[in-house]
Amino acid sequence: MPNAAPLTPQQAADSLCAIGRRFHARGWVLGTSGNLSVVTCPDPLRLSITGSSVDKGALEPLHILDIDDTCAVHGGHGNPSAETLLHFEIVRRRGARSVLHTHSVWSTLLSDSHGLDGGIAVEGYEMLKGLDGVRTHEHREWVPIVPNDQDMTRLARVVGSTLDRYPDAHGILLQRHGLYTWGASLPEAVRHIEILEFLFETIGRTATYGMYRSRGGQHGTAQDS
Amino acid sequence: MPNAAPLTPQQAADSLCAIGRRFHARGWVLGTSGNLSVVTCPDPLRLSITGSSVDKGALEPLHILDIDDTCAVHGGHGNPSAETLLHFEIVRRRGARSVLHTHSVWSTLLSDSHGLDGGIAVEGYEMLKGLDGVRTHEHREWVPIVPNDQDMTRLARVVGSTLDRYPDAHGILLQRHGLYTWGASLPEAVRHIEILEFLFETIGRTATYGMYRSRGGQHGTAQDS
Amino acid sequence: MPNAAPLTPQQAADSLCAIGRRFHARGWVLGTSGNLSVVTCPDPLRLSITGSSVDKGALEPLHILDIDDTCAVHGGHGNPSAETLLHFEIVRRRGARSVLHTHSVWSTLLSDSHGLDGGIAVEGYEMLKGLDGVRTHEHREWVPIVPNDQDMTRLARVVGSTLDRYPDAHGILLQRHGLYTWGASLPEAVRHIEILEFLFETIGRTATYGMYRSRGGQHGTAQDS
Amino acid sequence: MPNAAPLTPQQAADSLCAIGRRFHARGWVLGTSGNLSVVTCPDPLRLSITGSSVDKGALEPLHILDIDDTCAVHGGHGNPSAETLLHFEIVRRRGARSVLHTHSVWSTLLSDSHGLDGGIAVEGYEMLKGLDGVRTHEHREWVPIVPNDQDMTRLARVVGSTLDRYPDAHGILLQRHGLYTWGASLPEAVRHIEILEFLFETIGRTATYGMYRSRGGQHGTAQDS
Repeated sequence: MPNAAPLTPQQAADSLCAIGRRFHARGWVLGTSGNLSVVTCPDPLRLSITGSSVDKGALEPLHILDIDDTCAVHGGHGNPSAETLLHFEIVRRRGARSVLHTHSVWSTLLSDSHGLDGGIAVEGYEMLKGLDGVRTHEHREWVPIVPNDQDMTRLARVVGSTLDRYPDAHGILLQRHGLYTWGASLPEAVRHIEILEFLFETIGRTATYGMYRSRGGQHGTAQDS
Repeated sequence: MPNAAPLTPQQAADSLCAIGRRFHARGWVLGTSGNLSVVTCPDPLRLSITGSSVDKGALEPLHILDIDDTCAVHGGHGNPSAETLLHFEIVRRRGARSVLHTHSVWSTLLSDSHGLDGGIAVEGYEMLKGLDGVRTHEHREWVPIVPNDQDMTRLARVVGSTLDRYPDAHGILLQRHGLYTWGASLPEAVRHIEILEFLFETIGRTATYGMYRSRGGQHGTAQDS
Repeated sequence: MPNAAPLTPQQAADSLCAIGRRFHARGWVLGTSGNLSVVTCPDPLRLSITGSSVDKGALEPLHILDIDDTCAVHGGHGNPSAETLLHFEIVRRRGARSVLHTHSVWSTLLSDSHGLDGGIAVEGYEMLKGLDGVRTHEHREWVPIVPNDQDMTRLARVVGSTLDRYPDAHGILLQRHGLYTWGASLPEAVRHIEILEFLFETIGRTATYGMYRSRGGQHGTAQDS
Repeated sequence: MPNAAPLTPQQAADSLCAIGRRFHARGWVLGTSGNLSVVTCPDPLRLSITGSSVDKGALEPLHILDIDDTCAVHGGHGNPSAETLLHFEIVRRRGARSVLHTHSVWSTLLSDSHGLDGGIAVEGYEMLKGLDGVRTHEHREWVPIVPNDQDMTRLARVVGSTLDRYPDAHGILLQRHGLYTWGASLPEAVRHIEILEFLFETIGRTATYGMYRSRGGQHGTAQDS
């Protein structure tokens, strides 16, 4: 999708609040976790981003910061999260206009269980077609998993090199931490979050059901003949 | 149920928006997936249908297209999805006045795990009585599963022949893709979606619990005497 | 709890609509399933009850019927469900002022998996203290499970004799069908639904987790040392 | 975090209602379970707390009691719950300004399955950084589990000694009962609830997925090559 016309900081704040509340309702950004951003000017870079330690279930426009690429705050109350560096990295390497980061149960679970594999493959699902540029369910999406790190400069470097190594990836998992995805617009990034979270939940639940099937189980119950 | 009096395109748009938002809240049409339609005139056919790539959580009446049987758009903004052909097929073969397509976790999971069986049997549940024409829980509903395909003309043909082969079926699963169901009215089609999704989730969860029971498990925990 | 002062039919209709929408949001009365009633006059009996085949997610006061003990309708649009007989049975045998019937995934699952046992024991949970008359978590609640039946007269008789056989029971499961519970007021019946549904979900999930623990599992993942 | 300026009883009532409804929507305080408090004056102690047996999904300011440290009620309708003693204990031993108690499925499940261990360790998750004073995901949080008891004086004593024994703990589980956590302000206590509940669900689901993985399972389904 071509990049959309940038939102103004005010539009960005309103839109990010609506998305933050929506994701909070789904349990994807509990406990002030997660951060959401939109590029309001690509050059010189201006980013609207949720401030640090904000309850996404009570997000108000004043919690959205208007920052430049030095993290100087030009609008909104509060401080940028240290993870803002990862947003910059993704904006620069992918030309993204929006970056969304969620902490869901299923992304945490898979990023943990598949961490030693360095990633998780998702393939064969119609839902994959909602990822930018994917035309068929016969697509294999490799979602890289990066070890978590409290040194944000180092983590941003690792995320950057991972983006370069997997140029077709639509998202990255931080181990036992959560998901980063992005898009050419906020709606595209929201779509990518919903698709990847859906697929992670589907993979997680299918594994349990598959265990049952692999034991010769017919669906149904003990009462079935 | 006899066919209900047709809705006007405006009524259809309002009703489809309400249903789209309801299904989105349940996670059944995430990531712009799914499509929803209502027949506003049976002959010559006019269909109100959600446009392609629309966020169902932010559905507005302008996202609902008023189309004829050549897919020409007479109202609404956007383009019909390629899957509109499947809606036509179901309207023609079943005389349906509404067709609903969802992508839930449980329908994706079962359509995948039971794909090689060509379908999944659902029987013995009181909830089955909500399906049109079913009078007792002692009913066996066979939900056919059709392989997914990006060639929509071919997929429509396969769906059509599957409808003919299983004249009593109330829904069809596309493998690793989702559920199609329909009704003599939008409320009946909504009822069928809710019933089939409920039953798929129940079957999926019962399998896991059944594994536990088959190992001699009493419900309760390690602390139980 | 002593019986509360009866609601007027109008108050009953408003309250039942609010509860119906709440339960629908939780997925406990999908697909027009379930029915909800409140006694507005104990003698001669007048009952406000959801009509047959109504979408609980769009419940309006006109969908609530004001009926007498012959099922004659004195207010509201539509027809009483055949299951109204079960409401009468519970009102008469328990002196209940409200009867609520839900079709949740977890109650369907447990009523199925434990059907051959004739019931399911729930004990040791603090949440049990919310059931009328229970003073400690060291309580053993036996929830009888009755085979499902389309002959409502016969089913009402079986439910009635089950109520007599288990005078301390706070609810009854119909196999592969759902839960009936009741109370001295609508709020008490709502509380009983929420408590029993919570406990069923807890028992269902604990079984799966218990399987893991019984295999020597430490919580955590493959990456744990 | 330093203690926030105290709320007035009116502000406390409004805020507790909003949080109670939010937690009810998530299923964490069903069936009138749970209780929520905020300190409005630290010395002499005044506490705003949800009254006994209140439906948290319909919480109104009048259901919030303004009490002193003798449990005398200075505002609001109803009676304090017997568990108010546990709130006092936590306020005194931790200097907490808000105490929140939930009954979720996952906290009930883990408090049960790990009860004999005396607690459950949670470590390695980014989400832990949202707990007050935790700076890295490489943190090991020990959540003590205390046996449930209907003698509230005795239970309060046990909770008090457990708080002293684990001075770094951010929460306590009562076995087969639920979670207590607290904070220097209501928002901090809410954050702690959301974080701990998230982590409990993640641990619970990871165990099931881990069983699958430990059997050599690749994610995916029977159809996978």
